Amino acid sequence: MQLPLDLTLVDSNLLQAELSKLATYSQAEAPAVTRVVYSVQDLEARAYLKGLFMGAGLEVRQDAVGNIFARWPGENEARPAVGTGSHVDAIPNAGMYDGTVGVLGSLEAIRVLKRSGFRPLRSIELLMFTSEEPTRFGIGCLGSRLLSGALSPEAARALKDNDGHSLDKARANAGFTGMLEEVALPAGYFSHFLELHIEQGKILESEGASIGVVESIAAPASLRILVEGEGGHAGGVLMPDRRDALTGAAEIVLAVERLARATGSVDTVATVGMCEVSPGAVNSIPSRVTLWVDLRDTELARRDGVLNEILSTCSAVAERRGIAIQHEMLNADAPTECSPEITGLIASSCRRQGIRHRAIVSRAYHDSLFISRIAEVGMIFIPCRGGVSHRPDEYASPEDIARGVLVLAETLGALAGAV
Amino acid sequence: MQLPLDLTLVDSNLLQAELSKLATYSQAEAPAVTRVVYSVQDLEARAYLKGLFMGAGLEVRQDAVGNIFARWPGENEARPAVGTGSHVDAIPNAGMYDGTVGVLGSLEAIRVLKRSGFRPLRSIELLMFTSEEPTRFGIGCLGSRLLSGALSPEAARALKDNDGHSLDKARANAGFTGMLEEVALPAGYFSHFLELHIEQGKILESEGASIGVVESIAAPASLRILVEGEGGHAGGVLMPDRRDALTGAAEIVLAVERLARATGSVDTVATVGMCEVSPGAVNSIPSRVTLWVDLRDTELARRDGVLNEILSTCSAVAERRGIAIQHEMLNADAPTECSPEITGLIASSCRRQGIRHRAIVSRAYHDSLFISRIAEVGMIFIPCRGGVSHRPDEYASPEDIARGVLVLAETLGALAGAV
Repeated sequence: MQLPLDLTLVDSNLLQAELSKLATYSQAEAPAVTRVVYSVQDLEARAYLKGLFMGAGLEVRQDAVGNIFARWPGENEARPAVGTGSHVDAIPNAGMYDGTVGVLGSLEAIRVLKRSGFRPLRSIELLMFTSEEPTRFGIGCLGSRLLSGALSPEAARALKDNDGHSLDKARANAGFTGMLEEVALPAGYFSHFLELHIEQGKILESEGASIGVVESIAAPASLRILVEGEGGHAGGVLMPDRRDALTGAAEIVLAVERLARATGSVDTVATVGMCEVSPGAVNSIPSRVTLWVDLRDTELARRDGVLNEILSTCSAVAERRGIAIQHEMLNADAPTECSPEITGLIASSCRRQGIRHRAIVSRAYHDSLFISRIAEVGMIFIPCRGGVSHRPDEYASPEDIARGVLVLAETLGALAGAV
Repeated sequence: MQLPLDLTLVDSNLLQAELSKLATYSQAEAPAVTRVVYSVQDLEARAYLKGLFMGAGLEVRQDAVGNIFARWPGENEARPAVGTGSHVDAIPNAGMYDGTVGVLGSLEAIRVLKRSGFRPLRSIELLMFTSEEPTRFGIGCLGSRLLSGALSPEAARALKDNDGHSLDKARANAGFTGMLEEVALPAGYFSHFLELHIEQGKILESEGASIGVVESIAAPASLRILVEGEGGHAGGVLMPDRRDALTGAAEIVLAVERLARATGSVDTVATVGMCEVSPGAVNSIPSRVTLWVDLRDTELARRDGVLNEILSTCSAVAERRGIAIQHEMLNADAPTECSPEITGLIASSCRRQGIRHRAIVSRAYHDSLFISRIAEVGMIFIPCRGGVSHRPDEYASPEDIARGVLVLAETLGALAGAV
């Protein structure tokens, strides 16, 4: 590999056309993108991607949950591969860049290396993860959890979607019928893994940087809180006699916000993203409310401190209002540090290319968090306009995407080694 | 009519059997009752009731929205009739007594009068109102609003259900194809109207009274509040940069509760019964929340004071949080006083029968509120266990129902006059 690689090796027009085409496999009207795992549109997107991977001369296989591997065999196939990739599933009414930039960008990075005449010593393998988003099964990073052993096949088999269908049934309907036991990767499969992704925040944009060198991935925790009070007619029950589940839940929503702000660190974020009210009639006092809380931090102890304060608040609200509040931890994963070797290579590439970059923390869930259990990981962030993500107006510029691809290509090349 | 009528004239077993049978026409599993207007189950219940009314020798007709009239012609048909009745539609997962006691209890009161040998001078007419509950079209007391002229045919034609079907389409599908213009009753149709109903509160139970003589019907107002913030990824957007629609909505939910309590009067009640969150994903910051607020009071000025304070709070929250909060008044009806003539007759009947009774305020929406625009109205409340209503465990004892029927029969007889 002749360094630096040239930005003119990146076929930005091709990549943009592929991103646009991928966005058409959607359950929502454009510009919104909805692509729930194993939906018809998800399966069509997968078929499109596998065609592109094969078209680039990669060896394609998929596992029992639909993780797709596209391999560029290295001269020395016996050595651990260098992985790169992301996901293409999208939550309801999301945009066209989250995850997809990392999948199609990895493909373009491989094509850049090929165009440069590079031939890898180790294999380079593109990985498209199944269900990074928790939309269907309530748990994020399903594919990478199974690949890394963070989720056992038994626990995976217990997962059900909102319609009550098991993961096994859903994946079988989508044509993935292998054994879940065969999904976990053997030790030493990957030495390193890289993920190119939009920032989903506005730090890069506000500082005019084109590349974020991710140093750590925050520790996400999510929990479901069930508030049970007493229903009744909105006209018939006097205020002092009420045990309204929604007013109790509202106190928790505000406490989640207050407690996350109270750590004094911008690295603590907490969100109540869903609130379901039962019976849900304008003239009925809510008897039951379910809240879903998402809590993230770069420091595990600080995150767990906030978590404990949220649960203490739940107890206090329950006691004071005479209602019952229970919770269920959906997941509480540990944060991870990125590989100094990889962050060093990414930063070197930026310097060589004259690309403005900065160190950054990832506060979003990423498959790399789980792959860090079995390989050295690194992430390359690119700016997204206004920090917007998970919305139809999510946007990353072709120029920033191309720069991300170039840095990814140089880093992959350095890690894989040339023949 | 030989007063007092005898409690043995009330066929409690028959009435209980009819209530139980009516409860089987339900979209929910017993003991829950769901009967949304124009559903298959609602139409089956209507057919059952019309059969019972005809079996009691009443003349049955129905209007263009499905209000059912069952008339016992008096000796002097030219004089205004005395009306009695209620509704049989039920919100999701409700019980078997709300409304139904007033419809089948009115039928039994008429049968009691017939068994006693009574022959009315004026006609007595049983009325089953269409869609007292706002479940389907978002507006309560649809039938009585149209009958009384409180809702114009034009405004009714603009109503849509949650599936986007217009009232005209929904009623046509249910077989009601007449002109909405013909629903409003002519002046002087009823001189008086009586409604027997469960209390939907626990004042009667706690005081050991069997009859509540309703002196006024509270003024309900309902509004929809739309909170619009900015969505984004739950991990990517830092706390200071957020404009979360749900945390703003939570402040409003708590303000509604606080402001209703702050009047210092138990006659003020306010409820947020529904809360819809969009996009509704565990890892997405809510961008849009819709709240439905129900506010009632016996005093119009006090209610409107609370309403204004709620709207001021919305403005303050919007300003402070940098979010947009809009509202839409769904209805804001005036309270009504019951007819002193009728409350006097109800109290006299209770005294004659040795039934413990007390004056009471109705805080629930009732069709009588609208019929008060065209007739003198009165309501007879009976206790419901624990004040519970709009729930599967809603319960009124056969003894209390029978006493209510007896008092209703005596009052109807007194108002209609004997031949």
